[in-house]
Amino acid sequence: MSKERILWMATRNKNKYSEAKNILSSMGVTLKILEVNRVEVQADDLKEIASYSLRNLESESRPIIVEDAGLFIDGLNGFPGPYSSYVLRTIGLEGVLKLMKNVENREAKFKSAVAYKFRDQSTCFLGVVEGEISTEIRGSQGFGYDPIFIPGEGGGRTFGEMSPEEKNALSHRARAFRKLGEWLLTRN
Amino acid sequence: MSKERILWMATRNKNKYSEAKNILSSMGVTLKILEVNRVEVQADDLKEIASYSLRNLESESRPIIVEDAGLFIDGLNGFPGPYSSYVLRTIGLEGVLKLMKNVENREAKFKSAVAYKFRDQSTCFLGVVEGEISTEIRGSQGFGYDPIFIPGEGGGRTFGEMSPEEKNALSHRARAFRKLGEWLLTRN
Repeated sequence: MSKERILWMATRNKNKYSEAKNILSSMGVTLKILEVNRVEVQADDLKEIASYSLRNLESESRPIIVEDAGLFIDGLNGFPGPYSSYVLRTIGLEGVLKLMKNVENREAKFKSAVAYKFRDQSTCFLGVVEGEISTEIRGSQGFGYDPIFIPGEGGGRTFGEMSPEEKNALSHRARAFRKLGEWLLTRN
Repeated sequence: MSKERILWMATRNKNKYSEAKNILSSMGVTLKILEVNRVEVQADDLKEIASYSLRNLESESRPIIVEDAGLFIDGLNGFPGPYSSYVLRTIGLEGVLKLMKNVENREAKFKSAVAYKFRDQSTCFLGVVEGEISTEIRGSQGFGYDPIFIPGEGGGRTFGEMSPEEKNALSHRARAFRKLGEWLLTRN
């Protein structure tokens, strides 16, 4: 395995790290965790947030990645979007379901942006999964908004009702990290 | 008037600029507008957001300020707080009132943090006004959350039902900018 097949993910979110590690592992890429604080800017575009974080991390002699994810609900003009974790900490899943009462369009997208940098090379990959917001909290697996997000191809179950393997077959995070993995494997 | 009695405010929000200009003008300080984009970080503390923006502005040979403001609703664990403008753009005042349905504690705080820098000197002032969230949108003056915020000392009216002068006698922004003005005037 070449040196470049080992990546460091700058995050304090063990759930995200664990998912990403499993996805990359199946592609022969080893993911390690770098527990540092990262600067997050306010922006509507997740790629901009992830890339900014990465640019502001100390330049290291090893490949580093940063991921930023969010749930974008069509009927709420994209809310909570880039501020998904803040919204979860304050109004919570119950608050989001309250906002969705009497909202007909329940379509939503889960997005994940993974920014990569090594030496003078940097790039960013976006993964998206379409689905809808459930009318109640369902399931206790996963984390974050998983118990209220029903992916389009998941047989009507929420991510919270799926095993990690099932979620990783469909999720926004898996899509972004698989793009990264494929890109890494085709490079010299 | 000494050179230091002229300040530049980095903002694209004309409403904020106009309020700040009026407050400082009454203290003999001239406020000019610097229409530049500023970097806003994600943080729970407005002082941190304003100070970060200021640090990341090009170093100038003149005194610059940045203001960051937000509405913190007790019954919603501080939501929308630092993301007040994003929340307004997405779920709007109606969304916030929907979240407040059946919430007994309607207490809230409007906060404003003003960060100042000139040469090697920097400081930050916080202004806070306590009040509560109205049950409906009232008044068409002011901007942002003014039509749903009833300050404690405003006779039961929302900021949206007050003239600019009345709002400036009570507001979070006025309190922060008056602190800045007093500090400037006592310096040499």
